Amino acid sequence: MSNNTGRFITFEGGEGVGKSTNIQFVSEWLQQQGIRTLITREPGGTEIAEKIRNDLLKAHHNEDMSDLAELLLVFAARAQHLEKVIRPALASGTWVLCDRFTDSTIAYQGYGRGLSKEVIASLKKLVQQGMEPDCTFLLEAPLELGMSRARGRAADAGEQVDRFETEKLEFFQRVQQGFTELAEQQPRFRRIDASQPLTQVQKAIATQMEQLLTTGGLV
Amino acid sequence: MSNNTGRFITFEGGEGVGKSTNIQFVSEWLQQQGIRTLITREPGGTEIAEKIRNDLLKAHHNEDMSDLAELLLVFAARAQHLEKVIRPALASGTWVLCDRFTDSTIAYQGYGRGLSKEVIASLKKLVQQGMEPDCTFLLEAPLELGMSRARGRAADAGEQVDRFETEKLEFFQRVQQGFTELAEQQPRFRRIDASQPLTQVQKAIATQMEQLLTTGGLV
Repeated sequence: MSNNTGRFITFEGGEGVGKSTNIQFVSEWLQQQGIRTLITREPGGTEIAEKIRNDLLKAHHNEDMSDLAELLLVFAARAQHLEKVIRPALASGTWVLCDRFTDSTIAYQGYGRGLSKEVIASLKKLVQQGMEPDCTFLLEAPLELGMSRARGRAADAGEQVDRFETEKLEFFQRVQQGFTELAEQQPRFRRIDASQPLTQVQKAIATQMEQLLTTGGLV
Repeated sequence: MSNNTGRFITFEGGEGVGKSTNIQFVSEWLQQQGIRTLITREPGGTEIAEKIRNDLLKAHHNEDMSDLAELLLVFAARAQHLEKVIRPALASGTWVLCDRFTDSTIAYQGYGRGLSKEVIASLKKLVQQGMEPDCTFLLEAPLELGMSRARGRAADAGEQVDRFETEKLEFFQRVQQGFTELAEQQPRFRRIDASQPLTQVQKAIATQMEQLLTTGGLV
């Protein structure tokens, strides 16, 4: 590595594509190379940001949340996460592995809910100040496969299916289209076929990680 | 009145200048003219927005809140409040009396904490879409008087003094300067000397209200 700063790797994709499992895999893979890692997630990742996550996803309010309030809450949580967790970890040389980041906001709130992409872009600029992930793994699977996995997992855990998971199929199709377009536009993306058996998925991820490490740069 | 839409009146000023007492007075005064009123406050005013208020003011987190996260939470609460409470009430002909609004954000976060006024202005534009209060009462009192009233009231109620009230005097001087500059710039402001005896304060407010009602317009 050419410097002591950690790298910021995000994991994106629809519901049930295996983000958590594969983040754990990448963390262990990096640790075997002697690299410190921090696994975190969005929305959330700090005490205050997790409270905001709870308001966004789990709380069953007696009123609907306005789309704009939702978007501002997502970015409030992200501002807190960046300042209190992500930037300090990277500065100390830890690699940060994050389950969802702004690409999810663009895919879900922008493509999915139809909020202005210009507004999202301006909030991204305000909160990230030009900072981008060094690498983004997009885990891709046919929509029906991911959704049935997500439903099964929620049922197994005895969890209530959250607000986003009750949205309809068309919404998720728009979200998937959003991720695909983002990945086509930006070289930091690594597209992974998550419909393969897990060993194949992880082999593909490991190949990308080796390439990233040996070239010393990620994009 | 020339139309059936309610008017939006905000009450601004530092700590302990008597906003709550005088909002109640204006509400009763309007009701005596046969006008429906709704008293609300910021941050807050809806179930979700009050949860955000709690995160902002009362929760004693184990981590500091970033200035930018605070600002985004304030505007998230405001977006919710506008969409779910303020706009529907105004549309139904109710006059809305609000304890603090965006002028407080500009005064506290902008002048007080030194956050970018351009950033605050862009979030204001995003959330308010050009909507402004029809009239803003700025209750003005020497800083020491307001602060000692606020402290006494918090102690009487057995309350913990909240985050904003523990900030230092210089901060409140900048806030006061902010309110003064806003009032000098915008004709919707009505400046009220809140250091007078309450009967005098309310006489001054009633004079303004009569003028507003009889002219049919507020600015």
